[in-house]
Amino acid sequence: MANKKEINAGIIIIGNEVLSGRTKDINTSSIALWLNPLGIHVKEARVIADDENIIIDTVNIFRKKFNYVFTTGGIGPTHDDITAESIAKAFNVEYGFHKDAFSILEGYYKTGEFTEGRQKMAKMPTNASLILNPSSGAPGFYIENVFCLPGVPSILKSMLGGLNNILVGGDPVLSKTLNLRTVESEIAKSLSDVQNKNNDVEIGSYPFFRAGKLGVSIVLRSTNQKKIDLCNEQILEFVKTKKIEILREI
Amino acid sequence: MANKKEINAGIIIIGNEVLSGRTKDINTSSIALWLNPLGIHVKEARVIADDENIIIDTVNIFRKKFNYVFTTGGIGPTHDDITAESIAKAFNVEYGFHKDAFSILEGYYKTGEFTEGRQKMAKMPTNASLILNPSSGAPGFYIENVFCLPGVPSILKSMLGGLNNILVGGDPVLSKTLNLRTVESEIAKSLSDVQNKNNDVEIGSYPFFRAGKLGVSIVLRSTNQKKIDLCNEQILEFVKTKKIEILREI
Repeated sequence: MANKKEINAGIIIIGNEVLSGRTKDINTSSIALWLNPLGIHVKEARVIADDENIIIDTVNIFRKKFNYVFTTGGIGPTHDDITAESIAKAFNVEYGFHKDAFSILEGYYKTGEFTEGRQKMAKMPTNASLILNPSSGAPGFYIENVFCLPGVPSILKSMLGGLNNILVGGDPVLSKTLNLRTVESEIAKSLSDVQNKNNDVEIGSYPFFRAGKLGVSIVLRSTNQKKIDLCNEQILEFVKTKKIEILREI
Repeated sequence: MANKKEINAGIIIIGNEVLSGRTKDINTSSIALWLNPLGIHVKEARVIADDENIIIDTVNIFRKKFNYVFTTGGIGPTHDDITAESIAKAFNVEYGFHKDAFSILEGYYKTGEFTEGRQKMAKMPTNASLILNPSSGAPGFYIENVFCLPGVPSILKSMLGGLNNILVGGDPVLSKTLNLRTVESEIAKSLSDVQNKNNDVEIGSYPFFRAGKLGVSIVLRSTNQKKIDLCNEQILEFVKTKKIEILREI
């Protein structure tokens, strides 16, 4: 069976709070883990400042470079939320109240509570499609291949499922992880030999310290389960020969 | 007192494991938090694949664009550790055994344990300066303004302090955080007014959910403490008028 064309994605994390170190980005991981079974590979992620020109430039580079682009952050009601307007400028389209977004928010808030501050969350490219928000009302949006999501991790996660039927993926990326009680230098040569014999499987080797003990996670990734299994057998062979303890196989 | 020139930095996270979502990047945060008091502002972070051409291109873009560049990941002993060789290619310098790195590693391991696999960790640009590793022996290195650190967060953190006297920073970035029991839309307009009156202070507004309750963190950042204090007073004024509860002031 021929492989489908590889479908890829880029992620743009918009937020000074990540660059200042105050906030650790977990949205890249959430988006990537959601995309893997859809057969969409994240190829690059950038963390950029809340700066209009930088947002416009990065979005315009990414939307040509990748099949899908996901932005996170900057779509709330405050002065530092400039993503929606920047996206409109990147696409050179009208920015203003989005009719459906306005209706959704109007319905979400009690009479009198849909204040000017909250109304700002209905402003976006007027021709955008909405991404519904089951957590807190305010929708995200997409234009062409650029999907704009909020920065709050729990809200972002709750919105991803609504996009499953809109994205068109390739073959899902499958993976297998072997956790070994060893150090990388002990297995480097054998692992390198296995990688050379299995070009279609991406073999990653990640040392870890857990509960004061050293170990290595070996991660096999491919769109082809049989190739992963073959690669795994070859690794288990040298693991056995070297009498390395297997901590976990998933 | 005139401000010193702003000194900036870019971070390159090298690792398929971050792009696959398996690993959440916390090194960006560690590096940024360490750089803030040194007066070095992180302007951009990129997560890129373990791919030689991508590493070379990104390093060459970043080393011209930023005063300092930090890379993390890919300097271990396995086949997927290609950072050191890629950096040598980016600078077009010789890649091979680094004399001092070799001595350090030779001294670190017991006789007979400094295997071929481990020796690879002494391979890097031969003219690089070393970054000592108090955790696990294998040093990082730097050439010109590019500093190459390991990906394992605890080891990376243990190595940063050794660079404090090598980096030349600007005015340290100071910050103040106000956690309020409110929602962003309630304060958006007032906060925007304060931002307009205080151009030298970067005001960030970050909604949070904690223990089932909504709140907003307002973060003021500037190199000038007096300007932060003035801005803070103006915020406390509208907080008082709106009868918003202050959860924490740090």
